Amino acid sequence: MNNLEIIQASGMEDKSTEFQGENIDSDAIVSEISEALSQLDVNKTRELVTELHPADFADVIENLDHSERKKFLEIIKDDFDPEIFSELEPELLEEVTDLIGRDASAEALSKLDSDVVIEIVEELDEKEQQEIIEALPEENRAEVQAGLSYPEDSVGRLMSKKFVTVPEYWNVGQVIDYLRNQDDLPNDFHVIYVVDPKHRPVQYVLVSRIMRNKRDIKITDISEPCKHLVSPHDDQEEAAYLFRQYGLVSLAAVNEKGRMIGVLTTSDIVEVIEEEHEEDIMRLGGVTSRDFYSAVQKTVFRRFPWLFINMVNAFFAAIIIMHYAESIEAVVALAALSPIVAAVVGNSGAQTLTVSVRAIAKRDITPRNAPRVVFKEMFIGLVNGTMIGALASAVVYAYFRDTNLSLVFGISIMACFAAAGIIGSFIPIMLNKFKIDPAIASSAFVIALTDILSFFVFLGLATSFLINA
Amino acid sequence: MNNLEIIQASGMEDKSTEFQGENIDSDAIVSEISEALSQLDVNKTRELVTELHPADFADVIENLDHSERKKFLEIIKDDFDPEIFSELEPELLEEVTDLIGRDASAEALSKLDSDVVIEIVEELDEKEQQEIIEALPEENRAEVQAGLSYPEDSVGRLMSKKFVTVPEYWNVGQVIDYLRNQDDLPNDFHVIYVVDPKHRPVQYVLVSRIMRNKRDIKITDISEPCKHLVSPHDDQEEAAYLFRQYGLVSLAAVNEKGRMIGVLTTSDIVEVIEEEHEEDIMRLGGVTSRDFYSAVQKTVFRRFPWLFINMVNAFFAAIIIMHYAESIEAVVALAALSPIVAAVVGNSGAQTLTVSVRAIAKRDITPRNAPRVVFKEMFIGLVNGTMIGALASAVVYAYFRDTNLSLVFGISIMACFAAAGIIGSFIPIMLNKFKIDPAIASSAFVIALTDILSFFVFLGLATSFLINA
Repeated sequence: MNNLEIIQASGMEDKSTEFQGENIDSDAIVSEISEALSQLDVNKTRELVTELHPADFADVIENLDHSERKKFLEIIKDDFDPEIFSELEPELLEEVTDLIGRDASAEALSKLDSDVVIEIVEELDEKEQQEIIEALPEENRAEVQAGLSYPEDSVGRLMSKKFVTVPEYWNVGQVIDYLRNQDDLPNDFHVIYVVDPKHRPVQYVLVSRIMRNKRDIKITDISEPCKHLVSPHDDQEEAAYLFRQYGLVSLAAVNEKGRMIGVLTTSDIVEVIEEEHEEDIMRLGGVTSRDFYSAVQKTVFRRFPWLFINMVNAFFAAIIIMHYAESIEAVVALAALSPIVAAVVGNSGAQTLTVSVRAIAKRDITPRNAPRVVFKEMFIGLVNGTMIGALASAVVYAYFRDTNLSLVFGISIMACFAAAGIIGSFIPIMLNKFKIDPAIASSAFVIALTDILSFFVFLGLATSFLINA
Repeated sequence: MNNLEIIQASGMEDKSTEFQGENIDSDAIVSEISEALSQLDVNKTRELVTELHPADFADVIENLDHSERKKFLEIIKDDFDPEIFSELEPELLEEVTDLIGRDASAEALSKLDSDVVIEIVEELDEKEQQEIIEALPEENRAEVQAGLSYPEDSVGRLMSKKFVTVPEYWNVGQVIDYLRNQDDLPNDFHVIYVVDPKHRPVQYVLVSRIMRNKRDIKITDISEPCKHLVSPHDDQEEAAYLFRQYGLVSLAAVNEKGRMIGVLTTSDIVEVIEEEHEEDIMRLGGVTSRDFYSAVQKTVFRRFPWLFINMVNAFFAAIIIMHYAESIEAVVALAALSPIVAAVVGNSGAQTLTVSVRAIAKRDITPRNAPRVVFKEMFIGLVNGTMIGALASAVVYAYFRDTNLSLVFGISIMACFAAAGIIGSFIPIMLNKFKIDPAIASSAFVIALTDILSFFVFLGLATSFLINA
């Protein structure tokens, strides 16, 4: 049931303006804007987007084509909500900042928190990044440059520098008075950190906990110890691991002296997880990064390396096949059947690989259980190989009426499945041991090995038992 | 820099016990426990795990092998922290509840919130689920059964029934007094909902906002409208979309009368995103669900269907090859080269597919831009196909010194790449249009089509221009 139905069922129609944000049909809006633009109707265009949430506004910009986007931004650039920048797909940021202009972009960005600005400008190319940063007001510029000095994908780039700290000796009443009277606190926060005299985080307390206690209670009595801390140089995935493993709502970042310098929240972590997710999926599909909104030229060059590696792999397999050219000339069915072996064995290897790479990412494979994992995968491969091999063998017998051919075919599949179980689990475990990200490198290795193995085993056995027998 | 180094650098060694939770080396602990178990040293075993966070405790249980796990749970089952249940991999829940016993499991579960219990028992098989639910105390039982009455992966199963509401006419002071004096409020909360007399959520306010305002300010003056609501029957991914799109920290669930009955928080959404992530990756690898901790037998049967589908696909490709058996007998190089065409074209199709499926999931492909997407992918395929085709063609010429063969080879790759761009984008768009999840179904279709096409085009062209010419 969608929200509209809820409203109708409950007789809340009169309040429907409050629910305007829900169920935005951005495709319909884009069509209307597109029409208004083609009629050069400036007022209609403005009107169509005035009520939009920045996230929906960004969707509209993304879904217009290049020339429409240009006209559209020309019309709305004077009241461009800076929040839209943080919602735009990174691939479109350069185009949009170009169209709006460097100074206007910098002015808009100066209204955002520095961690958000960092997230945006780090996506721009070096030249544009410098131009925008130089156009920022001085205080923002320093903060943004400080953030960018941390490595990519580090906690330092992600963390917010706005957080609330109180000393250990305060009671609940003092904290409440401080929160109510202090002007330069962040607008919204969920957690307050209790720090020692050197400003090192010792405990944390949820705001709701403060509201639920009497004024004379010591703040340290209702706070929890800060068991986990991160450095701004730590990888953001390390922080994400801590959030997930320990169900954190907030995590303090400290400098080398232990002094608190930033904070990560659950929404930061949602972003990190999303990014990881995107990366993992793209890598599995042989795409180095998401390129849906990228220009054709960029996309072509990003996708090329993976295709090239696979072409090289395929040639290796072809060399094996050529090695058995005489056998194929003698029994041409081998040419049709060997790709079947390679295909099903490759799939089995990919299954093992997928499970193993995920298990490594989730830290489920340890030196202790690694041999057990490889053995289990080999066994699973053997069992599925026996079933698939038997079925495939029966089909081949039905078609060719050749017992030896169908036996060699079935046995090759069975043996290669077991080997694929070993290859698919052993390779990522080894790569990980040598600190190579198994998610990137494993797949090309595994495909190459299962292909070569399949052709070699099947054509080799066929040559021994069918041709030379 | 890890936390230990931070502590040392800052001279905080004296406080190191507060940081015990960080950098748990669960592999080392598992080894020690394993040793203690083999020596039947009950006290040592207990001692090793007393200080562990439930999440780390669950990791230990996961990493023991079956017989160790049995001994281990026998020893610690009397002081089994119920939180461990919610941290365990779903595949191990049945084993663990069996080992601990139905009544002990139910007693432990009764200490958790009903939404957490639902998450756990929904993973058990029907019989065990019923047994555990019946063993729960009456009040928990009703709540759990109510939650389970909502569909799988729905908001109703995920939402917490504990939330804080206040009437519209209160001021900040009244809210603060209520929070401080009311006993049956949740322990921790970030958001307070302002409801109308029919208990329908109208506005929400962050707790920190309440602390930052004077007692006589009207609560509605510092609250934001509830623009987004969900029904407990909505899919959890719908809720996740709203959180991500609009940066929500909390989302109210309402019944058909609009009355507030539950709330979702960012941590719920982190779980949903993780689940989605897991599913997406497993599907891409041809695994129906994560099976790292599953028994061998279960794993075999879960992986079999995908292997079977691919075997059938491979046979279709083999039929094409057999159709050109005479050509292969005449030019045996075709047997070695046709798998290369299929391999690189398949990879190109997989790249397009990956980008398209993700774009559909992120709602970036709309009816309006779909034709543009397909055209763009075709064009990218054509460009990469030209480059890969030219390279591959050159290699073939260098090896076989046959101009016609290398030309047919290169042109086939080029043409099939363009077709793979269309196939890889068009198929998921079409499946999505007919409400079939493109992430599950696309891959088998795309592989089958690119394989068949590759063999057909290459062997067909070769027959026309090399054999019959």
